[in-house]
Amino acid sequence: MQRRRFLQQAGTAAAAGALAAPARAESLPEVKWRLQSNFPKSLDLVHGSVVDLSKHLEAMTAGRFRVEVSANEEVVAGGQILDALRDGTVEACHADANSFVDRDPVFAFFGAMPFGLTPGQQEAWLRFGGGLQRLNEALKRHQVIGFPAGGTGVQMGGWFRRELKAVTDLAGLKLRAGGFNAAVLAKLGAVPQRLADRDVLAALGAGRIDGLESTGPYDDEKQGLYKAARYYFFPMGPGDGNQFILLVGRNAWTALPPAYRAAFGAACAAAGVELRARYDASNPRALRTLLANGVQLRPFPQEIARAGFLAADEVYAQTLAGNDAFRQIFSEWKAFRDEQVRAFGLAQARVQAFIHAAVVTPAPAARK
Amino acid sequence: MQRRRFLQQAGTAAAAGALAAPARAESLPEVKWRLQSNFPKSLDLVHGSVVDLSKHLEAMTAGRFRVEVSANEEVVAGGQILDALRDGTVEACHADANSFVDRDPVFAFFGAMPFGLTPGQQEAWLRFGGGLQRLNEALKRHQVIGFPAGGTGVQMGGWFRRELKAVTDLAGLKLRAGGFNAAVLAKLGAVPQRLADRDVLAALGAGRIDGLESTGPYDDEKQGLYKAARYYFFPMGPGDGNQFILLVGRNAWTALPPAYRAAFGAACAAAGVELRARYDASNPRALRTLLANGVQLRPFPQEIARAGFLAADEVYAQTLAGNDAFRQIFSEWKAFRDEQVRAFGLAQARVQAFIHAAVVTPAPAARK
Repeated sequence: MQRRRFLQQAGTAAAAGALAAPARAESLPEVKWRLQSNFPKSLDLVHGSVVDLSKHLEAMTAGRFRVEVSANEEVVAGGQILDALRDGTVEACHADANSFVDRDPVFAFFGAMPFGLTPGQQEAWLRFGGGLQRLNEALKRHQVIGFPAGGTGVQMGGWFRRELKAVTDLAGLKLRAGGFNAAVLAKLGAVPQRLADRDVLAALGAGRIDGLESTGPYDDEKQGLYKAARYYFFPMGPGDGNQFILLVGRNAWTALPPAYRAAFGAACAAAGVELRARYDASNPRALRTLLANGVQLRPFPQEIARAGFLAADEVYAQTLAGNDAFRQIFSEWKAFRDEQVRAFGLAQARVQAFIHAAVVTPAPAARK
Repeated sequence: MQRRRFLQQAGTAAAAGALAAPARAESLPEVKWRLQSNFPKSLDLVHGSVVDLSKHLEAMTAGRFRVEVSANEEVVAGGQILDALRDGTVEACHADANSFVDRDPVFAFFGAMPFGLTPGQQEAWLRFGGGLQRLNEALKRHQVIGFPAGGTGVQMGGWFRRELKAVTDLAGLKLRAGGFNAAVLAKLGAVPQRLADRDVLAALGAGRIDGLESTGPYDDEKQGLYKAARYYFFPMGPGDGNQFILLVGRNAWTALPPAYRAAFGAACAAAGVELRARYDASNPRALRTLLANGVQLRPFPQEIARAGFLAADEVYAQTLAGNDAFRQIFSEWKAFRDEQVRAFGLAQARVQAFIHAAVVTPAPAARK
């Protein structure tokens, strides 16, 4: 009987519609949003993620809440996106939060802080470490709300035309970098450069830049960076992967029916999990291809990593001086990071080292 | 047209034709599912996760798709849950997939395979490494469909009353363990035990068992395991954390309107991210409490870990002999794991070791 009752309730047969039940007649409005991805279509995984998001939303709402996706610069220039969200020219934007750090350093917490959180720790801090609440409080002044929206997963550090063996090797190097990473590299003696994605390969090939941050093997291989730089470095810290943000204008959000807000939140979470999973599933093969093309894989020397860690501390200290919003969030963020690292860093390091050794070392023929 | 066709296929618009504004008036049916959590309410994070799932679904569908959550044993006994899903006594179940391994070892791929995938790798394999497709093909024989549904995040290995220094220390130890972990421990000389959650602490205190698998600091601390065992071991492999599965009966799934299927998938993803994030956010403090209560933290000696790795290989080899479904999935799974570990294991190990050293070692007062 239980089962029969369920089938009646499920009511998917045409007959179900004939029942005169008022509760079933309420309906939700049609809503159409414009969402600009702040990435070119050529970064197909990250661009595809917002296409997935729009498909999820459309499916979940039986086609009533639709999101029209455009690529970067198609509707508004990247630099104007915050204004466009405030003014309602677009309702939403998918971006690397680091690209807004010059406007407001608080955005960096949504992105990848140098020596910051792993993807899992980032989700934990944002959702249950108080991070998201704090950040959205701070972002009220920009009239936007942020949602965590995936990332590039496990990462690499960067591309260099020459091998780095000591901090002094960074002196005067022209490195394409943004956000806090640029500030950290400057403290190490490098000269950070700004360049559009489309200009990177030519600049690297011509030696106008000496290196750049990696966005991960999959994207790096597609861009052909290995043709112009030989040395590919491990990440310097655990938070080196890009984390993305879905920004929504406050007015658009307020106008959204509660059911669509819930759908949007769940769709962001789903598209975020899927994006990271796509990168993680795609990166190892791309890395193999890079190595087959003669790329030299290197860890950063401990001296450089240690200097980078201290430089990041200095950058943070300078940023929080005179910036109350940043200072308050930073102290909570740092306490969270340190607690995570103290609790599990050593165990994770050992486990990763062990499984790596076990997988790459053939097992003995027999075991007693 | 595409959209109209979709709505017709969804079959939800039976009443819509009668109304003046067809596009806005179509409505979805009321559906109520019963979802049994296979965990006690005392495991509040994992039980709470399905409560979150039901809230997401209810909010996303404006109250039309509701999921009534019960705790373990409330509707059917844990051992009968697969039959209950097939027969429609319940529509869904949230469980540790390892609990079904005796029924069909294929379930283990949804759970935590010894020396298997990290939470991120698991998402990547299931969603974009072909895993989910393969597994749901294999689970057709049970008339169920599985969805990834979170996990316990970063993990610990287990509790022991005495310190383990060599494989020989495991000889004859009565250890509470399930699934493939039990088979691996048996190969190392231990004697795996089955025990209900509620009986573990008393058995450990009375010495009827010598140790058990950890479900993570948060749950372990709440259970008071430290009162009966002193040694708390790091995980042996990266995949030691529990991963959970959301099982749905095939008939219930087929009867669900497409919009609710999309909502269910996104809600599972969202609740899964949230569950892992809750554990990751909660575990470090619980670990600190455990240490303050005199718990001794230990890594497994390399000899034990290596023997465990080889024992797991043997268990897998024995399982795939004569089990075609398991064999095919295992070979793909292993290739995926090995590729992930080869590509990023060393970089991850170094980065984790570096950040741990950097955070626990006070910085020098000045830097030149």
